[in-house]
Amino acid sequence: MSRFRAAVVGTGFIGPVHVEGLRRANVEVAAIIGSSEEKSRQAAERLGIDPRHGSLESVLADESIDAVHLTTPNRHHFAQASAALRAGKHVLCEKPLAMNSAESAELVRLAAACGRAAGVAYNIRFYPLCHESASRVRNDSLGRVLHVTGGYVQDWLLRDTDFNWRVITADGGELRAVADIGTHWLDLVQFVSGHRITAVCADLQTVHPRRRRPQGGVETFSGNAAPPRETEAVEIATEDAGCVMLRFDNGARGCLWVSQTTAGRKNCLRFEIAGTAQTLAWNSEVPNTLWIGHRDQPNEVLIRDPALIDPAAAAISNYPGGHNEGFPDTFKQLFRTFYGSIAAGDFATRPRFPTFADGHHEILLCEAILHSHREQRWIDVPSSTA
Amino acid sequence: MSRFRAAVVGTGFIGPVHVEGLRRANVEVAAIIGSSEEKSRQAAERLGIDPRHGSLESVLADESIDAVHLTTPNRHHFAQASAALRAGKHVLCEKPLAMNSAESAELVRLAAACGRAAGVAYNIRFYPLCHESASRVRNDSLGRVLHVTGGYVQDWLLRDTDFNWRVITADGGELRAVADIGTHWLDLVQFVSGHRITAVCADLQTVHPRRRRPQGGVETFSGNAAPPRETEAVEIATEDAGCVMLRFDNGARGCLWVSQTTAGRKNCLRFEIAGTAQTLAWNSEVPNTLWIGHRDQPNEVLIRDPALIDPAAAAISNYPGGHNEGFPDTFKQLFRTFYGSIAAGDFATRPRFPTFADGHHEILLCEAILHSHREQRWIDVPSSTA
Amino acid sequence: MSRFRAAVVGTGFIGPVHVEGLRRANVEVAAIIGSSEEKSRQAAERLGIDPRHGSLESVLADESIDAVHLTTPNRHHFAQASAALRAGKHVLCEKPLAMNSAESAELVRLAAACGRAAGVAYNIRFYPLCHESASRVRNDSLGRVLHVTGGYVQDWLLRDTDFNWRVITADGGELRAVADIGTHWLDLVQFVSGHRITAVCADLQTVHPRRRRPQGGVETFSGNAAPPRETEAVEIATEDAGCVMLRFDNGARGCLWVSQTTAGRKNCLRFEIAGTAQTLAWNSEVPNTLWIGHRDQPNEVLIRDPALIDPAAAAISNYPGGHNEGFPDTFKQLFRTFYGSIAAGDFATRPRFPTFADGHHEILLCEAILHSHREQRWIDVPSSTA
Amino acid sequence: MSRFRAAVVGTGFIGPVHVEGLRRANVEVAAIIGSSEEKSRQAAERLGIDPRHGSLESVLADESIDAVHLTTPNRHHFAQASAALRAGKHVLCEKPLAMNSAESAELVRLAAACGRAAGVAYNIRFYPLCHESASRVRNDSLGRVLHVTGGYVQDWLLRDTDFNWRVITADGGELRAVADIGTHWLDLVQFVSGHRITAVCADLQTVHPRRRRPQGGVETFSGNAAPPRETEAVEIATEDAGCVMLRFDNGARGCLWVSQTTAGRKNCLRFEIAGTAQTLAWNSEVPNTLWIGHRDQPNEVLIRDPALIDPAAAAISNYPGGHNEGFPDTFKQLFRTFYGSIAAGDFATRPRFPTFADGHHEILLCEAILHSHREQRWIDVPSSTA
Repeated sequence: MSRFRAAVVGTGFIGPVHVEGLRRANVEVAAIIGSSEEKSRQAAERLGIDPRHGSLESVLADESIDAVHLTTPNRHHFAQASAALRAGKHVLCEKPLAMNSAESAELVRLAAACGRAAGVAYNIRFYPLCHESASRVRNDSLGRVLHVTGGYVQDWLLRDTDFNWRVITADGGELRAVADIGTHWLDLVQFVSGHRITAVCADLQTVHPRRRRPQGGVETFSGNAAPPRETEAVEIATEDAGCVMLRFDNGARGCLWVSQTTAGRKNCLRFEIAGTAQTLAWNSEVPNTLWIGHRDQPNEVLIRDPALIDPAAAAISNYPGGHNEGFPDTFKQLFRTFYGSIAAGDFATRPRFPTFADGHHEILLCEAILHSHREQRWIDVPSSTA
Repeated sequence: MSRFRAAVVGTGFIGPVHVEGLRRANVEVAAIIGSSEEKSRQAAERLGIDPRHGSLESVLADESIDAVHLTTPNRHHFAQASAALRAGKHVLCEKPLAMNSAESAELVRLAAACGRAAGVAYNIRFYPLCHESASRVRNDSLGRVLHVTGGYVQDWLLRDTDFNWRVITADGGELRAVADIGTHWLDLVQFVSGHRITAVCADLQTVHPRRRRPQGGVETFSGNAAPPRETEAVEIATEDAGCVMLRFDNGARGCLWVSQTTAGRKNCLRFEIAGTAQTLAWNSEVPNTLWIGHRDQPNEVLIRDPALIDPAAAAISNYPGGHNEGFPDTFKQLFRTFYGSIAAGDFATRPRFPTFADGHHEILLCEAILHSHREQRWIDVPSSTA
Repeated sequence: MSRFRAAVVGTGFIGPVHVEGLRRANVEVAAIIGSSEEKSRQAAERLGIDPRHGSLESVLADESIDAVHLTTPNRHHFAQASAALRAGKHVLCEKPLAMNSAESAELVRLAAACGRAAGVAYNIRFYPLCHESASRVRNDSLGRVLHVTGGYVQDWLLRDTDFNWRVITADGGELRAVADIGTHWLDLVQFVSGHRITAVCADLQTVHPRRRRPQGGVETFSGNAAPPRETEAVEIATEDAGCVMLRFDNGARGCLWVSQTTAGRKNCLRFEIAGTAQTLAWNSEVPNTLWIGHRDQPNEVLIRDPALIDPAAAAISNYPGGHNEGFPDTFKQLFRTFYGSIAAGDFATRPRFPTFADGHHEILLCEAILHSHREQRWIDVPSSTA
Repeated sequence: MSRFRAAVVGTGFIGPVHVEGLRRANVEVAAIIGSSEEKSRQAAERLGIDPRHGSLESVLADESIDAVHLTTPNRHHFAQASAALRAGKHVLCEKPLAMNSAESAELVRLAAACGRAAGVAYNIRFYPLCHESASRVRNDSLGRVLHVTGGYVQDWLLRDTDFNWRVITADGGELRAVADIGTHWLDLVQFVSGHRITAVCADLQTVHPRRRRPQGGVETFSGNAAPPRETEAVEIATEDAGCVMLRFDNGARGCLWVSQTTAGRKNCLRFEIAGTAQTLAWNSEVPNTLWIGHRDQPNEVLIRDPALIDPAAAAISNYPGGHNEGFPDTFKQLFRTFYGSIAAGDFATRPRFPTFADGHHEILLCEAILHSHREQRWIDVPSSTA
């Protein structure tokens, strides 16, 4: 088949991750777009990409480009996704899909109207053992889902001197830890369990109500302390951590803990999904093993191995057992799935990648969490199909 | 020194655990008392104990006996502890201390009035690495406590055919999973963090609103399915699982997940206590290692080793590094501490064992949790010193 | 039944371990004997034991004492065990049984002649999951044994300032790391696999050919650096580490690595026994889990749980799943087994505890290892029944 | 810079791994060559590569191609590498470099004569934590290297019905488990420790002296049992498992265990390198953590994190801490290093990738191991610079 051609918009941490994933998925990276023509050119040179396009407008006017990947700050997603869909491009957008549910609902409608593939980069689903977990629920190995618990914890914002655009409400939105990382967990456990969250009760915590912004800005995951610089105090309204109690559409209960201020946890998503027949536990920092708990026989630790997992999971696993696949592989597999759907040309049946509808549901969920926190009570999550 | 002499009341799972722990702590087990003279005699013979005493009354009348250990069903604790204190005995009572806070408050008063040592068997504190964790908070290695999360999960009540007196409200109390195991976690994290829980928001779940009781009864932790027997349906009002969001007196937040219906988790208490300088994580199923998380240096995994831990922790650790100590050792260490306090003769200063005041605070906490669940809102925990 | 009465000879690290294990096994500790009457009295007072006996002679003359436990330095084992057997006592001796195979062969003969129970304290067999492993070989779950590998590593002799009587040939014997810890591993894997080692090829390493002895002596496992003291240089001929390649009587191959100079490993015995159907891996620092490897299904991690293990293993496991048992429990279980055999009164059938014959075989094996190292070639291990 | 152009020769398991790694390293894959023109065309189509070249000859005649990657069966390496070097191409060859040391010595000479970059794909070095380990030895964190132990075990050849060209001496060489996987371990520990192995004593084991070959052949790592097919018995002379005792040029000792018949171990390389100051342990199945053992402080578990590791390791690590990198990433990093050296244009200084000299040393080592096994004695390893 002829290769698809994609443009990546955004040159921060995650843009180059998309570039690499696209190359591995055998999709041609036709352009990389930064926040200016100059930044686009620099990124193109650094990453070995054709520098002819320097702006999204230029990309959208190029009929040879099939798809646009949006890895820009959250507040640009709505306008950029809308423009790309209207230009007839397929769109794969980083999460969150938009700044609020009015925007995300509009994007769902627009994607349907344009008849384009419209995905959100919930890449964590594409760890093969997450697909395996979903298969174990679908084929009833797990039994009825009873409990869904876990968390997503990091430490890169532990200190009040840790700074990033995401901590500022105007740039990242009113929620931060929940929206940045909690949303990955919420998407994942609903994907795995096959059940929607219908009500939430949240309590959020801002560890540092004031942070010190270095003059000049800081990259995401820039790691260890850079040399000291001049800083200015900034009031912070977004949460560093929080708990969300959960109810699912089948009566299951659970809870999520998120934190970006937990020393020593670098990027640690954990879930434990307990059913009437078995329990599944997984940790993103050791993603090639899945713990399977049993009552009346020894527990199991399944090593990711295409020969030992469900066909749906094996389909997104390219290396033999014991040969670790990691975070970059999830993007490759998401993209293989996304472009595979496009090649199949069927957008009517439910696609195997996370769609704009999923992204919209996540925003409704985040809004309910914020609402719950503010009112300190349980809030129902509106149905995303309403 | 002359050896202390103790009587153990209760012959179920935990009574013999006390017997063994007392012997290791070099306390003479002078009597074991069952629910009848006959059961007392049988237990005495089975465990190699002097059979002369067959009832609590007989024990209380024996002036050579210094202390009474209560390992009976919860509903007997109040009457038995009261009688023992009044008879001038030191009392070590299994948790929960009583059936409600009126009873437990009365026991606190009575213990003070009688001038006897009065402890509650929160044995988990006595894993040396739990003491080590507490020391790391006290000596400010951890920094300010920010988050306290974790859970206590088991699987022995997974099936609706799993039955035990604890599931019945009249025998075990209105709370079950929270009171049986959650209370261990709640006591432990307050001991380690040095901070009291001041408010709770709970959501409890009864997985099996009806269980099938085998005619004849079932032992705690009796394990795998016994041969099928005649059963009768029983309505269950106590919770199998639940989530409790937490606020601490220093502003820290957290949450607890408890479940007795999580396949594959046999007896798994986990905490993760995050501070401004480091995080401590511990798992009761691997109790000889403590995970210490760091932001700017490699994380640590501390093997329990008297040479590497704080003196307060080394004082309750008798075996060299790499020589595992386990669950039975916690009773030995609790008893060494309890009788060490008695030998020191000083009940005025805060003792190093969990006291009736701690047991009373746990009951207030459980009542607040039940209240919160019923009203589906945050509830303040009354101060136990009120 | 009436309780057995035992005397413990030796007051170092392991003597009190025996005292505690005997009490848990419901055997009366009738005497503790040190290297002098005075040391005996001090130990008796410290451990709450009747001080009437101050010497082995006194113990042997006491007809009410059934058994003697020898926890003295290796060079005393032969004389003390011989005397105790001749006095009609049952004997449980710490390993190694004697200083050479002439002595150990004589002890085997003497035990048979005296008709007494004669055991060697290979306590590690008595971790329940080691019994479980043996059962899995016996019942053919493992298939034919192919490979037996692993090691036993510690760090307490890492520095040239670390000193103990065991490093001196005259006190501990010509082998040290192999005889002290390697012999535990060699006994264990033969017990588990059910196959005898028939030939060895060894290469031993003395990391510190000269150590500095503190004036005054050092306890085993005394841990972290004590305050600096005057030292004197001592030439060391015993090995700190070494490798032994192995051949088993069924054609299986394997290897053992021992070291007392591996930083961070406190007391870490690991085995991996691979069969045609499954592999078993176990680590003494996490003794409550057994890894079971499979080719065509997920691997298993079995938590020690009386409900999930073979009856032979459950018989030496007293606590429910998830309630860790540790190093001290192995002594309790060894003693329960030893005295259970005595109570059964049958020494003709093969007992379930490690016997003097096993201890003798271990010494033949050590002699073959030393011989192999000196000649740098494979050496056959003599049959211990010859 | 203009992108390098590479051709990959070989279309089995590892060829496509090179293709993907080259794309991630921003090297253009200009051709893929199979064992026939037809197979080349099919692979080119499947992998999205220009199909114009169907043979190695055609590739070598194309001046626009800079480098050739050889992923063909071992017996072709010598002829293909020679031809490519003579055609002026840089060569990156899969291990083992050749069938014997005469060939590999010739290739070392030829590479030097041709002035081309000549590397061997010891990719495991390129796990960042292996580079970190090497840095810790170089900067003396580890102290003097004392012991080097570990193994490489798999289970894909467990059954006598498991078949692959590698088991046949004529196709894979006289050694198999040692040459296929042991050589990775041997290269790795010499890279990490900075010390050469100078003598070996080996004992090899053929578990299945006869295997059943399916008519039609089997892919490497094809996993679970395919439907039963007609088989024919084949005599096997290569080893399934074995032990090699080791001596290093600084006096350190160690041992290696290799096996392809260990149920449950999919692809498990483990090393434990003990020094006078600390110990490093690593497991390829959990490659993002490095265990660092200490005597007098808690052990450490370092998560791969560019912010926490040595610059030499961070240079080959592209994702933040907690975002797992895996097996495919090692090829990307090896290729980035290989082509980075070519871009730097300096082949005189010691390159940072494994060279033909390293590949030659490995073959000398394998020959010494085979020699030792046959004579059942220690054999010195010839210096590869002789």
